[in-house]
Amino acid sequence: MVYAVPTREFERRLNLLYRVMDEKRLDAVYIVNPINIAYFIGFYYLQTERPVAIVVRRNGDIYFLGPLLERDHVLSQTKLVSRVYTYRDYPGEVHPIRLFADWLRELHLDSSAIGYDASPGYVSYWGYKGPSLTDLLPNAKFVNISDDIYSMRLIKSDVEIELLRESAKWSNLAHSLLQDYTAPGMYDYEISLRASLDASIMMKKALGPGYKPLRSEYPAYAGFRGQVGEHGAYPHSISVERPIKVGDVLVTGATADVGGYMAELERNLFVGKPSNDVVKYHETALKLQDAALNALRPGVKASDVDRAVIRVAKELGVAEYLLHHSGHGLGLESHEAPFLDVGDETVLRPGMVVTVEPGIYVSGLGGFRHSDTVVIHEDYVEVITYYPRDTESLTIEI
Amino acid sequence: MVYAVPTREFERRLNLLYRVMDEKRLDAVYIVNPINIAYFIGFYYLQTERPVAIVVRRNGDIYFLGPLLERDHVLSQTKLVSRVYTYRDYPGEVHPIRLFADWLRELHLDSSAIGYDASPGYVSYWGYKGPSLTDLLPNAKFVNISDDIYSMRLIKSDVEIELLRESAKWSNLAHSLLQDYTAPGMYDYEISLRASLDASIMMKKALGPGYKPLRSEYPAYAGFRGQVGEHGAYPHSISVERPIKVGDVLVTGATADVGGYMAELERNLFVGKPSNDVVKYHETALKLQDAALNALRPGVKASDVDRAVIRVAKELGVAEYLLHHSGHGLGLESHEAPFLDVGDETVLRPGMVVTVEPGIYVSGLGGFRHSDTVVIHEDYVEVITYYPRDTESLTIEI
Repeated sequence: MVYAVPTREFERRLNLLYRVMDEKRLDAVYIVNPINIAYFIGFYYLQTERPVAIVVRRNGDIYFLGPLLERDHVLSQTKLVSRVYTYRDYPGEVHPIRLFADWLRELHLDSSAIGYDASPGYVSYWGYKGPSLTDLLPNAKFVNISDDIYSMRLIKSDVEIELLRESAKWSNLAHSLLQDYTAPGMYDYEISLRASLDASIMMKKALGPGYKPLRSEYPAYAGFRGQVGEHGAYPHSISVERPIKVGDVLVTGATADVGGYMAELERNLFVGKPSNDVVKYHETALKLQDAALNALRPGVKASDVDRAVIRVAKELGVAEYLLHHSGHGLGLESHEAPFLDVGDETVLRPGMVVTVEPGIYVSGLGGFRHSDTVVIHEDYVEVITYYPRDTESLTIEI
Repeated sequence: MVYAVPTREFERRLNLLYRVMDEKRLDAVYIVNPINIAYFIGFYYLQTERPVAIVVRRNGDIYFLGPLLERDHVLSQTKLVSRVYTYRDYPGEVHPIRLFADWLRELHLDSSAIGYDASPGYVSYWGYKGPSLTDLLPNAKFVNISDDIYSMRLIKSDVEIELLRESAKWSNLAHSLLQDYTAPGMYDYEISLRASLDASIMMKKALGPGYKPLRSEYPAYAGFRGQVGEHGAYPHSISVERPIKVGDVLVTGATADVGGYMAELERNLFVGKPSNDVVKYHETALKLQDAALNALRPGVKASDVDRAVIRVAKELGVAEYLLHHSGHGLGLESHEAPFLDVGDETVLRPGMVVTVEPGIYVSGLGGFRHSDTVVIHEDYVEVITYYPRDTESLTIEI
């Protein structure tokens, strides 16, 4: 059973990083993006105004630089860190980044070539302000390798795909419960919290004592995020004042955290027998999703998938209701490149994972969107999320 | 009843912004921080890789620049925007920031003095990459006014304090339910999701049809975030593999979203009769919180509050267990300046709101921390969160 990233997978990733270091003649890399830190050493933490970085040295030593409050936490979560440097807190009597510079001097890295991802310092977050290491270590040479790391993350390994498949299973459970619990008169979050609660408990009982979510407080989630009736016409509605009522078209979302990987499953639900208009728009949305799925294959450009959707939307007379592109990459982050967007010329390759989710949004009526998570293989595509798509299966009897 | 920010409060904030614009001779400001956007126009949205900005012109016109999927959403949530400019999606055939530059030209702002907050472009988020407006509009003069906006947000108005007081009430309900529902054998998120569900429903029923959370999917939250027993010794534990058991020390957190303002209430809970050691550490943590509360008053430096805590911790022999500073500012963001930290020389002034939460962390045993939200007034401080603090009241009978 796979519910966490195994050690050999971190070795694979670090070897890819060493290859970049060799190509670019780097002595070390300085990483501050929390997702990149999780990617290389399996430690995930709550980002705050307190600077955190890992330094990976070409000889394989990995140092953690961060606040005292993460000291024992990082040591309990990963075996890959050989030394932990901590400051008491931010801003501190001496700014943390000045201490980081001191530690890099201590490590004899102050005249080295150092790759970095998001910033050679720290990023603006919750009131953080501070200097750059480029000023504090003028003899070091800082090289932006953000794109190199991003390229590694773009192609998922078999392990990552397996974690996403496991996530899809529990997303399906959470979504099933969401549908079971939906009834008119209830608030969307009432249903959401109940479904998330029951799915989380069952997922944990099934996976057993060793399992815990990496990035989330609880294992499985399903909900509506305010996409209720006419509010569903806002693709990113957050919350809504009113309870669900008969006739509402709902837009759902479900996921589960398996080693930090979360598949994306989204559907429509219909509260009571849907009107002819609703049925028509729903069937149209399905045709658009089919158009994307049919266009999606290795060797094709991401932009071509979006263009296929736009073409069909024009034929069906709904192009004006398309409020966003056809999907996005997915991995340790909820959205990653590539984007199934007319502007993204990335050629789809085996190991890429994307959501497929063209949607149409009808003002005053609601949103019509299904999202599935799809893996590109050598000579086929695999839809890893599964849940009925037809109108009848998605109708809540009242 | 106050559960949202009223129009006159936005007028007050915009007038503060106009004053900065006059002082710095700015024709417009360009704002991309989502919290700053919510602060000035009351619109909150889910940040993604899609650039969003508002432009506030000195004549009072406010423009929204963003993806098509937010077009109807922004118009439904705020009356303050006079024009909406949208692009289809990111990255698009033409990069959104290039379109932003075109729109600023159309508005005759391409040779103007423009203030900006986080970036004269957009910020790195979920795979976003793009150019800067400073390159695309070489005749415009861009001036960083991030600190000016931050200074406005530092001093809360009576309206903001009232929203935080309302939040404290429902935080208290959520926390009461959390304590009621806690029992050995349960997973922390099981209790958390139940308490959040019931508190959310009751809060909504009490506040009535007009209420909805601004930044959250559901109204009220209480939970443990993995701070269970020995895992509570990590101040930012996220999740834990095992259920709660007799003898555990738990660290809680509760809040509620009232117009986007969320008070912070945190306590310890003891599962069964606490050991002598646990009682001793808990009482010590209370003494540290008292030391902070006693030191906190207008005219005092933020650093002095932290120093007072450290002094008492040394006297009590627990200085080595202090893993973070004594508190942080709070407003539309969960953490804001000022920080109750030895390195923050900010003088505390009326209208500032901070959490007071020194904590001690004992490896293998757990965390001991209470957090309360405190408002600085002209000649006193007001603790707006309320919940029992004594060991007996916080003990779960088993």
